Amino acid sequence: MIPPDHPRYRSLVTRELLAESARKGIVSLEGLTAHGRGESFDYFIGERTTESALLAERTAAALLLAACEPVISVNGNTAALAAREIAALQKACGAKVEVNLFHRTEERVNLIETLLRSAGADVFYGRAERLLPLSHDRAWCRREGMFAADVILVPLEDGDRCEALVGMGKTVIAIDLNPLSRTARSATLTIVDELTRALPNITDACKTLSGAERGRLLAALDNNYHLSEAIREMTKRLSHALD
Amino acid sequence: MIPPDHPRYRSLVTRELLAESARKGIVSLEGLTAHGRGESFDYFIGERTTESALLAERTAAALLLAACEPVISVNGNTAALAAREIAALQKACGAKVEVNLFHRTEERVNLIETLLRSAGADVFYGRAERLLPLSHDRAWCRREGMFAADVILVPLEDGDRCEALVGMGKTVIAIDLNPLSRTARSATLTIVDELTRALPNITDACKTLSGAERGRLLAALDNNYHLSEAIREMTKRLSHALD
Repeated sequence: MIPPDHPRYRSLVTRELLAESARKGIVSLEGLTAHGRGESFDYFIGERTTESALLAERTAAALLLAACEPVISVNGNTAALAAREIAALQKACGAKVEVNLFHRTEERVNLIETLLRSAGADVFYGRAERLLPLSHDRAWCRREGMFAADVILVPLEDGDRCEALVGMGKTVIAIDLNPLSRTARSATLTIVDELTRALPNITDACKTLSGAERGRLLAALDNNYHLSEAIREMTKRLSHALD
Repeated sequence: MIPPDHPRYRSLVTRELLAESARKGIVSLEGLTAHGRGESFDYFIGERTTESALLAERTAAALLLAACEPVISVNGNTAALAAREIAALQKACGAKVEVNLFHRTEERVNLIETLLRSAGADVFYGRAERLLPLSHDRAWCRREGMFAADVILVPLEDGDRCEALVGMGKTVIAIDLNPLSRTARSATLTIVDELTRALPNITDACKTLSGAERGRLLAALDNNYHLSEAIREMTKRLSHALD
């Protein structure tokens, strides 16, 4: 039990949720470490949605709504932290929800698909094939899912797969708290925000953006701007610590 | 298997080592997340020992050598990553090595003590009591160990315990990659460096520092300097990403 008077209570409770998900086999042990990396970066942006992140989230909504074959790629961490938020976003934008894992076993895929369904998502499933130009398990995806997608939302993605998807000509929207990561730098659009804050903002924007606003957002898409602003926020916060 | 061509190969292999240690019960699942947090900060200081960190490591050696009852407090992550380095430092400075866990079970304490012994450490053990002014399992320690210590090295410590130890009048040396953490700010001396780089540097300094150098290092101890320099390094690195 984490004592509620602990100054980092919320962060510790999230860690316990992930640890519990790891015990159940949903989250990989390596996924726990990856989560910790994200926590540090979130700390640096003040554990809030910045102005530039909100713009990125609205732009993500515009991209998903403009897509012919949008896909939301879900891994263990994403399912453990945000299954309901994924289901809500799917309803708002009509994307396929597909499970793709770095540490892939059929058992984990099934566990995560079940968790997503119980949260209300309509999970796209079926026979996976080695379709991506990658050397390990991340090469697996489904021909009518990620492989056929034109716009893919990849929360918490590995850099290799993000680069491969962009190399295949796809529009890739990443949610990544590290603006210096290969994922962040190679994605078409990077949302530097924490997953459970980012997803509801994208969902809201899907419901409220007018056609004209969507057009303006797409025309103004500039990922360098989003990465630079995130780095600027982090630098500012660090510099303040010196005052 | 992590493919050796992965750009973050070393970091991923360390994560696998920790995941394996978690499967064995040495590292707690929460410890995996904590490791990830450290990884981010290490990335920001360039995954190397900075000049100010090396000075802190030499000062840590001077403190340990000047102590009457030095203790090295070891948790699961420290044992998994650096059991041999802990044993080598013990030989060089004569400190007691004591296992103290945040997520404490007798079984984990025994596992970690066994691991440390197999790496050559002389582990101080025996009946633990609730001796520290803390609300949970971290209150446990041994009367003739941490409780009686005048100088304590706490690699990867929790902020609460670090503050409690300082409040008890002890000299606390922390190894913490986050210069903004409560541990880093409350410790007598904070080494902002990665564990397996920091420990051998302290050991080397224990073997080579002259008496006069030790005196000069102790007289010049200024933890604000070390924290400010670490923050400056991180800010510099982030700013360069904007160029």
